[in-house]
Amino acid sequence: MAVSVTKFQQKLCCIVEYDGTDFHGFQRQPDRVTIQGVIEDALESLNRGPTIVHGAGRTDAGVHAEGQTFHFDARVNIPSERWPLALNSRLPAAVVVTGARVVADDFHARKNATGKVYRYKIYNGPYPSVFADRWALHVERPLDVEAMSRAAALVVGRRDFAAFRASGSTPLKTTVRNLRRLDVERRGRFVEITAEADGFLYHMMRNLAGSLLLVGRGRRSPEWMGEVLASRDRNLAGPTAPARGLCLVEVKYG
Amino acid sequence: MAVSVTKFQQKLCCIVEYDGTDFHGFQRQPDRVTIQGVIEDALESLNRGPTIVHGAGRTDAGVHAEGQTFHFDARVNIPSERWPLALNSRLPAAVVVTGARVVADDFHARKNATGKVYRYKIYNGPYPSVFADRWALHVERPLDVEAMSRAAALVVGRRDFAAFRASGSTPLKTTVRNLRRLDVERRGRFVEITAEADGFLYHMMRNLAGSLLLVGRGRRSPEWMGEVLASRDRNLAGPTAPARGLCLVEVKYG
Repeated sequence: MAVSVTKFQQKLCCIVEYDGTDFHGFQRQPDRVTIQGVIEDALESLNRGPTIVHGAGRTDAGVHAEGQTFHFDARVNIPSERWPLALNSRLPAAVVVTGARVVADDFHARKNATGKVYRYKIYNGPYPSVFADRWALHVERPLDVEAMSRAAALVVGRRDFAAFRASGSTPLKTTVRNLRRLDVERRGRFVEITAEADGFLYHMMRNLAGSLLLVGRGRRSPEWMGEVLASRDRNLAGPTAPARGLCLVEVKYG
Repeated sequence: MAVSVTKFQQKLCCIVEYDGTDFHGFQRQPDRVTIQGVIEDALESLNRGPTIVHGAGRTDAGVHAEGQTFHFDARVNIPSERWPLALNSRLPAAVVVTGARVVADDFHARKNATGKVYRYKIYNGPYPSVFADRWALHVERPLDVEAMSRAAALVVGRRDFAAFRASGSTPLKTTVRNLRRLDVERRGRFVEITAEADGFLYHMMRNLAGSLLLVGRGRRSPEWMGEVLASRDRNLAGPTAPARGLCLVEVKYG
């Protein structure tokens, strides 16, 4: 029997939003529900066969995204603006593709990224919030946001972030990253820590947040943050903040 | 066997926040999970025996609250500021008591209320939001918020809201209510309709929202809203907006 073979192929870059609470992170794993896994499953029927999804970042289990990106090779001629709707109809409600555009053949969602924005969200009130429970860390006592801001300012710039990198992670050529901004703001009952960098080391954002929380709770001085950075010693930084508060807000290109 | 009898009794008024998605409304019903039901269950062990919870309003299935109130008679001498924590440890995560105060013996959470604030939330973007999915109605096409605001202004004041009352509801002495404000505002990708009145007729807020949505979609003119009000005819108003977007924000006293 003849099988119709289409030679059509183009590379697409998509933006995806997800509630990571019920997923084992982005990266595909056997027998576990992951973001990459459900997107590849959705693509398999749409794109006529197995399709590999290349994400810009491998978010951990429980981490969310408003603007994760991924690329894949489209083998069917669907206009780019139709892909989100087609994919969303095959994805669980917790994963929504919000954009798609045609990119150059040599584009790579991770390698071409020039920056990423992460936000760590804290619900700072005496009782938990039923509405923020899945997306924010609950901290009961009032945080000293002014002290957190001063601490954050001490680590902004092109620095060696070895002290804020997960211990035991694989050796890297360099642990220097350019942290373009690290803002701490109170918005109503929320405290939001927003970071933008050319790249993030493994657990870097959660370790920065965990250290800033120690400052916000008055257990460490703002100056301590600068000392931790200078030490390059992971043992001196604060604990890794829980995944639930973290969100990949945006991946920047060009 | 002697049972220790305490004569201690005082009336408490509590504030409660809930995600109504998985509940059959506020009011207790046999064999159904309701807000009143889970609070009464939590109180039974704490307050040494069955305890009736009197809510300020009976929110429908799927409707949320940031500031619902209820009163009950406390038979145990727990300081009022300890009640929220004691109750929360016995409540499901979707229900959180955020305040408690001692009130006069003749206080009634519903009868003493002098006003209520409701908010109807719409997520207005081309794709659904994974984060707002439980608490906002998704509307894809851009809403004309300016037209909605003009329509809203036409029904503010002490008016007869018969046209916006659920058809078939029980006869009332009067369908006149004082709608103190009805604001429509865009906040990022959300459109929020906020109403404050001395009281709301059954489904009044959802019918006001459903009618304003027709205006926002350009299917009716702002002036039509005034005509519907004047008609006192439920058949002329828009459809009842879905429960998920509605939240009881505050109950006002004195």
